[in-house]
Amino acid sequence: MSLFEISERAKKYQADLLEFMDSHVYPAEAIYEEQMAEAGNPHFQPPILEELKSEARSRGLWNLFHPHPEWGPGLTNLEYAPLAEIMGRSPHLAPEATNCSAPDTGNMEVFTLFGSDEHKERYLKPLLEGTIRSAFAMTEPQVASSDATNVQLSMVRDGDHYVLNGRKWFASNALHQNCKVMIVMGKTDPDAATHRQQSMMVVPLDAPGVTLMRGLTVMGYQDREGHAEIDFTDVRVPVKDVLKGEGEGFAIAQARLGPGRIHHCMRAIGMAERALELLCKRAQSRVAFGRPIADNANIRDWIAEARIEIEMIRLLTLKTAYLMDTVGNKAAQVEIAAIKVAAPNIALTIVDRAMQVHGAGGLTEDFPLAGFWAHLRTLRLADGPDEVHKRAIARQELRKYREGAR
Amino acid sequence: MSLFEISERAKKYQADLLEFMDSHVYPAEAIYEEQMAEAGNPHFQPPILEELKSEARSRGLWNLFHPHPEWGPGLTNLEYAPLAEIMGRSPHLAPEATNCSAPDTGNMEVFTLFGSDEHKERYLKPLLEGTIRSAFAMTEPQVASSDATNVQLSMVRDGDHYVLNGRKWFASNALHQNCKVMIVMGKTDPDAATHRQQSMMVVPLDAPGVTLMRGLTVMGYQDREGHAEIDFTDVRVPVKDVLKGEGEGFAIAQARLGPGRIHHCMRAIGMAERALELLCKRAQSRVAFGRPIADNANIRDWIAEARIEIEMIRLLTLKTAYLMDTVGNKAAQVEIAAIKVAAPNIALTIVDRAMQVHGAGGLTEDFPLAGFWAHLRTLRLADGPDEVHKRAIARQELRKYREGAR
Amino acid sequence: MSLFEISERAKKYQADLLEFMDSHVYPAEAIYEEQMAEAGNPHFQPPILEELKSEARSRGLWNLFHPHPEWGPGLTNLEYAPLAEIMGRSPHLAPEATNCSAPDTGNMEVFTLFGSDEHKERYLKPLLEGTIRSAFAMTEPQVASSDATNVQLSMVRDGDHYVLNGRKWFASNALHQNCKVMIVMGKTDPDAATHRQQSMMVVPLDAPGVTLMRGLTVMGYQDREGHAEIDFTDVRVPVKDVLKGEGEGFAIAQARLGPGRIHHCMRAIGMAERALELLCKRAQSRVAFGRPIADNANIRDWIAEARIEIEMIRLLTLKTAYLMDTVGNKAAQVEIAAIKVAAPNIALTIVDRAMQVHGAGGLTEDFPLAGFWAHLRTLRLADGPDEVHKRAIARQELRKYREGAR
Amino acid sequence: MSLFEISERAKKYQADLLEFMDSHVYPAEAIYEEQMAEAGNPHFQPPILEELKSEARSRGLWNLFHPHPEWGPGLTNLEYAPLAEIMGRSPHLAPEATNCSAPDTGNMEVFTLFGSDEHKERYLKPLLEGTIRSAFAMTEPQVASSDATNVQLSMVRDGDHYVLNGRKWFASNALHQNCKVMIVMGKTDPDAATHRQQSMMVVPLDAPGVTLMRGLTVMGYQDREGHAEIDFTDVRVPVKDVLKGEGEGFAIAQARLGPGRIHHCMRAIGMAERALELLCKRAQSRVAFGRPIADNANIRDWIAEARIEIEMIRLLTLKTAYLMDTVGNKAAQVEIAAIKVAAPNIALTIVDRAMQVHGAGGLTEDFPLAGFWAHLRTLRLADGPDEVHKRAIARQELRKYREGAR
Repeated sequence: MSLFEISERAKKYQADLLEFMDSHVYPAEAIYEEQMAEAGNPHFQPPILEELKSEARSRGLWNLFHPHPEWGPGLTNLEYAPLAEIMGRSPHLAPEATNCSAPDTGNMEVFTLFGSDEHKERYLKPLLEGTIRSAFAMTEPQVASSDATNVQLSMVRDGDHYVLNGRKWFASNALHQNCKVMIVMGKTDPDAATHRQQSMMVVPLDAPGVTLMRGLTVMGYQDREGHAEIDFTDVRVPVKDVLKGEGEGFAIAQARLGPGRIHHCMRAIGMAERALELLCKRAQSRVAFGRPIADNANIRDWIAEARIEIEMIRLLTLKTAYLMDTVGNKAAQVEIAAIKVAAPNIALTIVDRAMQVHGAGGLTEDFPLAGFWAHLRTLRLADGPDEVHKRAIARQELRKYREGAR
Repeated sequence: MSLFEISERAKKYQADLLEFMDSHVYPAEAIYEEQMAEAGNPHFQPPILEELKSEARSRGLWNLFHPHPEWGPGLTNLEYAPLAEIMGRSPHLAPEATNCSAPDTGNMEVFTLFGSDEHKERYLKPLLEGTIRSAFAMTEPQVASSDATNVQLSMVRDGDHYVLNGRKWFASNALHQNCKVMIVMGKTDPDAATHRQQSMMVVPLDAPGVTLMRGLTVMGYQDREGHAEIDFTDVRVPVKDVLKGEGEGFAIAQARLGPGRIHHCMRAIGMAERALELLCKRAQSRVAFGRPIADNANIRDWIAEARIEIEMIRLLTLKTAYLMDTVGNKAAQVEIAAIKVAAPNIALTIVDRAMQVHGAGGLTEDFPLAGFWAHLRTLRLADGPDEVHKRAIARQELRKYREGAR
Repeated sequence: MSLFEISERAKKYQADLLEFMDSHVYPAEAIYEEQMAEAGNPHFQPPILEELKSEARSRGLWNLFHPHPEWGPGLTNLEYAPLAEIMGRSPHLAPEATNCSAPDTGNMEVFTLFGSDEHKERYLKPLLEGTIRSAFAMTEPQVASSDATNVQLSMVRDGDHYVLNGRKWFASNALHQNCKVMIVMGKTDPDAATHRQQSMMVVPLDAPGVTLMRGLTVMGYQDREGHAEIDFTDVRVPVKDVLKGEGEGFAIAQARLGPGRIHHCMRAIGMAERALELLCKRAQSRVAFGRPIADNANIRDWIAEARIEIEMIRLLTLKTAYLMDTVGNKAAQVEIAAIKVAAPNIALTIVDRAMQVHGAGGLTEDFPLAGFWAHLRTLRLADGPDEVHKRAIARQELRKYREGAR
Repeated sequence: MSLFEISERAKKYQADLLEFMDSHVYPAEAIYEEQMAEAGNPHFQPPILEELKSEARSRGLWNLFHPHPEWGPGLTNLEYAPLAEIMGRSPHLAPEATNCSAPDTGNMEVFTLFGSDEHKERYLKPLLEGTIRSAFAMTEPQVASSDATNVQLSMVRDGDHYVLNGRKWFASNALHQNCKVMIVMGKTDPDAATHRQQSMMVVPLDAPGVTLMRGLTVMGYQDREGHAEIDFTDVRVPVKDVLKGEGEGFAIAQARLGPGRIHHCMRAIGMAERALELLCKRAQSRVAFGRPIADNANIRDWIAEARIEIEMIRLLTLKTAYLMDTVGNKAAQVEIAAIKVAAPNIALTIVDRAMQVHGAGGLTEDFPLAGFWAHLRTLRLADGPDEVHKRAIARQELRKYREGAR
């Protein structure tokens, strides 16, 4: 029973997606692991994934994220939220199977809103088809990227081109076998106003001067999509490939981050639910000191706390989606920051406790828990560390009580 | 209707109540403290409270809690929730001013649902008028009352009467100057099925054999309404004063607890909001080591965490209210248990941090914080300790995964 | 000598004190509560306390705190620490019975080190006899006293006197029936270097211009010794009553705080041990849902965590005492700050959980737990809030890594 | 300044080891990473390690752990503790360089105490030389190994042999390139008394019927030493290779675990210190929003809390070592359990916060933090999960208050 009246079409998508998870995605998990293990290449694109993509597409479970009706089903954030949560339960398979993976989702939105006709033809269409993938290059190794104005990759105008020099890392997806293009944030004008110094450009992965240095591991994992360190040496980008215009980088980033963050949070809740399910099943099946682990009151406390926290963060995420739909991303910025802090932290605690209940096995590849933890831990830093989001929330709160307000 | 579309009448009540808080309640707080200090009697009924009651009533802000249209405005739980939260911001004044104090609210519902015509005439009407008050006697000093079946006060049938012997404590409100009657839970049949052994009876406070032993302090506070220890020695209660019938005590308790718990939670959120407001104001006005305390990132973290947690628990409380309205108290039992655990704990942390920001003064009568803390700490035990509610939530969660469900 | 080899005399004192606790102090607790309740005056000095004082003194358990052999037994901090912990188990009785109560202990040290012959004769001797008591007035209502340089009470030289004007609060002990004198911190020279602006003066409680405004409640408690708000209006203090000299206030405060803080921490550990004992006993004697509460794994986790934390904080407190004895208070400042933060917080959690296990009764006067909590909560602010001590610890830690150190 | 008088030889070893860390170990870390990356084989034994071993040995920093003077320097636990902590700062290199790695240390002790002359000649000597390594096979995939009596690998007597059948996992070190032998725990007599059913046997890694199935990843890491899953099918072990005797498995496990656990805890503290150092350095060198991250009070709180917790857990670990030396492992069992719970949890929080301060890079191979976290997380399960140790501590605590004991 949900708090909200959900639309008929949202209900239909939920039912269809749940059915697809049960009939295809969960059963594919073991096959996926096997195909990956066999390949011995962490960036291998396993056949099972392409099968799942076909199946999902044939069922109409495709590009569900895309809010613009001409390019996707045109669901609202509130309608999409429960779908993203469901996908989060099998994060290696479900998002890609339905063509709803980060950072493609954000990139597709950016191309939709700010791309030229050429960008749409060359990148947006094949991305929507799921035939290519894309990366997003913003974070840099040498500066605290939590403060977006720190970005240092230089973009110097030279005739009809910009010349890019610098280093990016955590360019997620750049090592995906199908990745063809990236959107790169850099500094075009160090002398402009603080939030007008940055620009975003479209750069093919094979552009001269672009070098993939390595894939960074995250908590020991070399993720399939990859977190790339990329060197840019005299990379020449035509002026037509500047998105929206010089100096618009910060504004695009802001527009891009809202939906990206909420999608991450939804999937985090899905991981938390999956972890709680695994915890409960394991606790009921394992016996220690003469009785199922689930009979111990400390484990029951964990279960209850998990249920309480999941209910709370789900509601706040739905409210945030609702606000984004009704009053806009900017007006919802406190709520977006709030879920960005709360969702990964809540999920991490639940996953950690689920690992504890699974014993040493819970830390291994035999269960999805350690992978969830690694991914969720990254979320506490991606798009800004917790501390930066809390800072923003506190500033808004304190503002209420300045100058006798209220 | 979505959660965020509130009915016109609910909006009207909110606006009216907020206006009443600003114009009358907050300004009355200092007067209240003064009148109480002057009286030197912790159970004194200060004149300011009677003035507030008149004012509230004349504004139609009266008995807002009562869900039955013939006896009150007939608001749904979802409509009443934000009003109870607002009242919680000034918990010593606003609930009594609007005749929405525990345990009267619960008792009035019990009289409405299960009282005889005589009970309605003699107790319900003056309670609704605010001319008398009532107590609820359930907890006992000698047993763990978290397990309701432990109740031991004996109720032995003797002709047309029951004879009551035993001891109660934490009979809240029994020391209120206007208290006239109490509802008493006891054991009529130790040999009946576990949940049919208990009965509830209506007992005037001045019945022969009833002795108010003392008012218990809570965290040092002797509350005005009082937490009484009461001795019952051969108290004779006519059979007509058994509510609903012999053996119905447990069922009435269940019916009574749902709304009571949600009201407590709503008010707890109100206290949390008030504490956060005080924290922010204080942090901006106090200077240490050369700058306002509010400039320190640890205090900002506290503020952000408070805002996040308040948003989450408010939504879960509203969802619970919505479920109680739509599918009933029983179907909402997991959610009721969840907010019963989460709301006081969240509020306690916020109040504790607000005290910390206020320095030693925050622990004194100069600010409402220490009183909030004491009250909220009691809530973690009233109507069952956290651990019992978590136990219930975990049992429901584990049940999902028995016998291959899901 | 290792930490665990204690001197013979320290062992003897421990054995004697433990015997005294068992034979006299614990049995006196109920009598104390009765005498206080009967008196109806929170500042009443009950006869049982004077009896305990005689008994302790006759047993040689007197002034154990005093480190200077000419005035007391001359125990080291390391020898005294376990004794203070034992006293902390009955904090209303044992410290006063043995003449080891704050703030007298600190004041006696100050008089010993910095008092004139007259101060020693008039105040130190009767304090050591236990016939009078004393207060310490440092905290002020209008400024953040966590920053000692904020002190504002003005002390203006006028001939052979200083004239004091200002307001103090949390002048602990000032409402004790036997209190005769206080040590007052104020500002003599706003233009001096930051830490030379303050002076400390000896002021009789009945000096003209001194008005006890009220006793502040702490978490609802009006403590027997009292936390007084005191007004100073044109109070004339002879120059001879300036301690050590004008501008020495900050230095004396520093000297005074070390031992004071460690004594507080030791007693906090004693409260934690007592709370854990009460928790264990209660958990084994109360039955809910068919078995003793102590059989539940969540309660067992609490017990284990309490034992672990107590062991850790006790060792750190002993190490701190050892450092104070061997390298001095200044060299031990990080450790002093560390225990000042850790001890009250650890004890608070244990006491809170003990209250939870006791049910609603745990919050009342029937158990010492709520009083412990109130006292320990105050400790998180007394002599500087946690945040100020953490700030100091972090600064020292960061300093290690400046300028390429290590 | 340490709390304890340390012996001259312990001081000498500390100074020598610290010098070795600075001059050889830390500089070798980058080389190690490079050699491992180049090899592309997670179980590769890199040349740098053999160089470090030679160097350490030539400096007399070899087998420091071994308490028996005929086989090693014969340090007490209290003397060895600070050395193990120092090694923990570079956990991939220092323990192996000094031949003090788990599980060899425990296995060498077992061979010393319970091995036959043949075992000593064939295994103990080369282990002490560092020319071979060994594994320990206790945990099983199908049962909760937290309850040691659950062990199921069957060991059936057949003439002069036992026949082993079953499955082990988390047999640490079994994938180390130099590993030659393992000690295996199994069940010889299901009908014996609960703690007499188990036996331990010495099994060469290449014994017929032993199959290394795979190396388990831990939080994404395939550790160099490996956590092996091993199948035993009709493995024949001569009776002479039963350690101590049939039915002695549980007793040996108990004897083995004490030192093993304390070594783990010491190294955990070393990791915590290293993480705090990295945190402080990074926080001082990174700038966000116009100032070094270290200027933020929330980061300073983390630093202070880390310092406080490290001091406390180190002291408890030292006390535990002291008790093991003076009253024996059995009498120190509560303390051993306490540090086994506290040390990894304290270290995990510090490492997690250090990662947060490092931003996304902190999760990668560019810093040792993620590897520390993975290892420390495993420690919360190795040799029994936290919950089992807390259970044991609580049982001892509750026992004090049974039958009127006090």
